[in-house]
Amino acid sequence: MRKIPYKIHLTEDELPKHWLNLKAVMKDKPEPFLHPGSLKPLGVDELSAVFCKELVEQELNTSDKYIEIPEEVRNFYKMYRPSPLVRAYCLEKTLDTPAEIYYKFEGTNTSGSHKLNSSAAQVYYAKKQGLTKLTTETGAGQWGTALAMACAYFGLDLTVYMVKISAEQKPYRKAVIETYGGKIIPSPSDTTKVGRKILLENPGTGGSLGCAISEAIEVALESDNCRYVLGSVLDHVLLHQSVIGLETKLACDKYDIKPDMVIGCIGGGSNFGGLIAPFVEEKLNGKSDVRIIGIEPASCPSMTRGRFAYDFGDTGQTTPLMKMYTLGSGFIPSSDHAGGLRFHGMSPIVSKLYDDGYLEARSVVQTKVFEAATLFSRSEGILPAPESAHAIYGAIDEAIKCKETGEKKTIVFGLTGTGYFDMTAYMSYNNGEMTDYIPTDEDLEKGFASLPKVAVK
Amino acid sequence: MRKIPYKIHLTEDELPKHWLNLKAVMKDKPEPFLHPGSLKPLGVDELSAVFCKELVEQELNTSDKYIEIPEEVRNFYKMYRPSPLVRAYCLEKTLDTPAEIYYKFEGTNTSGSHKLNSSAAQVYYAKKQGLTKLTTETGAGQWGTALAMACAYFGLDLTVYMVKISAEQKPYRKAVIETYGGKIIPSPSDTTKVGRKILLENPGTGGSLGCAISEAIEVALESDNCRYVLGSVLDHVLLHQSVIGLETKLACDKYDIKPDMVIGCIGGGSNFGGLIAPFVEEKLNGKSDVRIIGIEPASCPSMTRGRFAYDFGDTGQTTPLMKMYTLGSGFIPSSDHAGGLRFHGMSPIVSKLYDDGYLEARSVVQTKVFEAATLFSRSEGILPAPESAHAIYGAIDEAIKCKETGEKKTIVFGLTGTGYFDMTAYMSYNNGEMTDYIPTDEDLEKGFASLPKVAVK
Repeated sequence: MRKIPYKIHLTEDELPKHWLNLKAVMKDKPEPFLHPGSLKPLGVDELSAVFCKELVEQELNTSDKYIEIPEEVRNFYKMYRPSPLVRAYCLEKTLDTPAEIYYKFEGTNTSGSHKLNSSAAQVYYAKKQGLTKLTTETGAGQWGTALAMACAYFGLDLTVYMVKISAEQKPYRKAVIETYGGKIIPSPSDTTKVGRKILLENPGTGGSLGCAISEAIEVALESDNCRYVLGSVLDHVLLHQSVIGLETKLACDKYDIKPDMVIGCIGGGSNFGGLIAPFVEEKLNGKSDVRIIGIEPASCPSMTRGRFAYDFGDTGQTTPLMKMYTLGSGFIPSSDHAGGLRFHGMSPIVSKLYDDGYLEARSVVQTKVFEAATLFSRSEGILPAPESAHAIYGAIDEAIKCKETGEKKTIVFGLTGTGYFDMTAYMSYNNGEMTDYIPTDEDLEKGFASLPKVAVK
Repeated sequence: MRKIPYKIHLTEDELPKHWLNLKAVMKDKPEPFLHPGSLKPLGVDELSAVFCKELVEQELNTSDKYIEIPEEVRNFYKMYRPSPLVRAYCLEKTLDTPAEIYYKFEGTNTSGSHKLNSSAAQVYYAKKQGLTKLTTETGAGQWGTALAMACAYFGLDLTVYMVKISAEQKPYRKAVIETYGGKIIPSPSDTTKVGRKILLENPGTGGSLGCAISEAIEVALESDNCRYVLGSVLDHVLLHQSVIGLETKLACDKYDIKPDMVIGCIGGGSNFGGLIAPFVEEKLNGKSDVRIIGIEPASCPSMTRGRFAYDFGDTGQTTPLMKMYTLGSGFIPSSDHAGGLRFHGMSPIVSKLYDDGYLEARSVVQTKVFEAATLFSRSEGILPAPESAHAIYGAIDEAIKCKETGEKKTIVFGLTGTGYFDMTAYMSYNNGEMTDYIPTDEDLEKGFASLPKVAVK
């Protein structure tokens, strides 16, 4: 019988040399970006005003299945990768389940999440292009930290528009970004036109990722040596995150682990899209019937209750239109929502795969998420990020089903990161003060009303 | 030429099966504990009123070089061990030094430090003895978290007396302990006699480890199924921490790494004593002339400015007398001191080895510590605990000397943990508000005045 260690560590030589471009494998490609005025597909030149050129090329690449990871990025990866695939022996024991549970743990770096996989790549390409400054937004703060770490390493300036409510709830997350030399501006702010407009219309708002994106893009467009970078949703971000899935698949193959299901949390879709990439590839090729399940918060249910439509990526309605599952760019989740995954839309790649029937999606209320997080932390010794705990909930749910049916299924899930900067939310849960918010159909209709009329399916 | 990866991961099979008992190797043993009244050496029976029996036996064991790690403890270790030995390629590049720098990283678990190595063992033995409840103290919160994690895993109740100033500065650390089911009482408190006495004499005090120890011991003595556990200083804690050094030595041997110096931070001495154990063994046997260097805070300089004398372990003067380097149990470091390592004394084993000339010790002010921490975090992608950053300072200092002399020395240091719950201190440093405190000779004399008269050397 094969013996599986608690932690499967791949060697440095096994660190992938290429990312996997899922779009090159998909027979039915996602729809192209559209210019919001002309409704015509956007090309490299138009997108390059906002994004680094090489990232735009990756964004539009639908033909190359493998894209080389630059040596400098691989060297950065070596500081914290390959990340461990962990056999959750202790969780299995706690649950008394016949299921085999594994998780790919992306939280062993200071950013506390998988976001570093893409920030390293994006900052590297920005430096190569001769840029000196980047802007971005951050919600929970994981992306901002990851980007600050990469900017400190490669030597670029960084301004982070941080969702105001997160900046207030997470002063320590802000302090980490500042320790890495990043400049933080709570959003919405009076430093941009769009920020001032949003503040005028919603004086008391705690902000949203959509608002912060609008502000960061506005600033990037003002300077030639500055670009905007985004930590999720876009195809090139999923490309970089495929390193998660490639390592997971390699570790599974080495130890003859055959997943019956792969489970991830979904907000913008970057972790999920990266984790599932090689598993989806096999499924697209008819070589596997693995179930692939995304878990999202009930308070921001873009996949389970959203529409598959062209929409803006930001609240200010300044980005290109993307075909995706969306609640409408005007949708802002309840400020009671503490569990992350607040974006109104979903990665176009993930959306397309879902619409074509390759994926499943479920939603869960946040008290259930924190219940799963607490059980997991006490069993496995890792206090998870609320975002990651959505996937834990999904895995536990399936493991309990196995106990009921007696089936010995193999469950692999993505543990995207740690919750050390999310303790305000844990305190709320520990003190019994956390409430669950599920938007009504009327709430959702208000969000859908913000969808661009011409493009609704 | 040998190729050394960024991270050296030992396999699960290479996890040590025995701890290394340094006292069995030392020809000149540390002096025994003395009863503070009779001044007679204490035996198993007397110590067992406070501590678990098996831990007392380990504490007094001077003959068995190897002590088996119980299977249940090894299984717990497998969740986060073996920990990586990291080649600091990026730091070397930043410093432009010919030195080879390695660090043993103990921060990959949620407690954020090496403390888990001993808490797992101590809780296991408590459970084996049929105890249901433990008390302890915590300062920075790492030990409290580590103990809460082990208690959650093995199913024991836990009450933590947390140094009041730490509980206020670190609400999130408190929240983590509570998530793991631990009960927190800020110390000094009105729940104990000694706490009430200290509050009466020093109404505004932020507390100290010494105070918190007194309170935790008082509570433990009140109940038959409860014992007190301690996260540092004592010989059995150093024994458990030897797993750090054993793994480090094994990794070095596997890759033919020959350290010229081994550097650690020193507060109570548990991490340091554990890290250096196998290296000291070689030195004691005349097989090596490796330099072994402890770095302590200038604001609490027990090794560099303390006295080698019998002293109490706590402010309330209730513990047995230990022969150690000490500033006197009445010494309380300035409340401006943010860098951890606040204990007035030092492990008897480390003290003895230092007095016998096997170790070096240096002190450093905290702004220099945070400067080193920031440089390290930007280079190596890990934001260190302030405690750990003392060792970083020492390693950087030696690496810079190598640059000046052109010598290619090999430096191994212990990175005991991460600083994710210490961001208040980082904020103070980032904002330029951190000050340095070095006690005057008069300040130290006040502490020495609290030494028990009969036992001063």
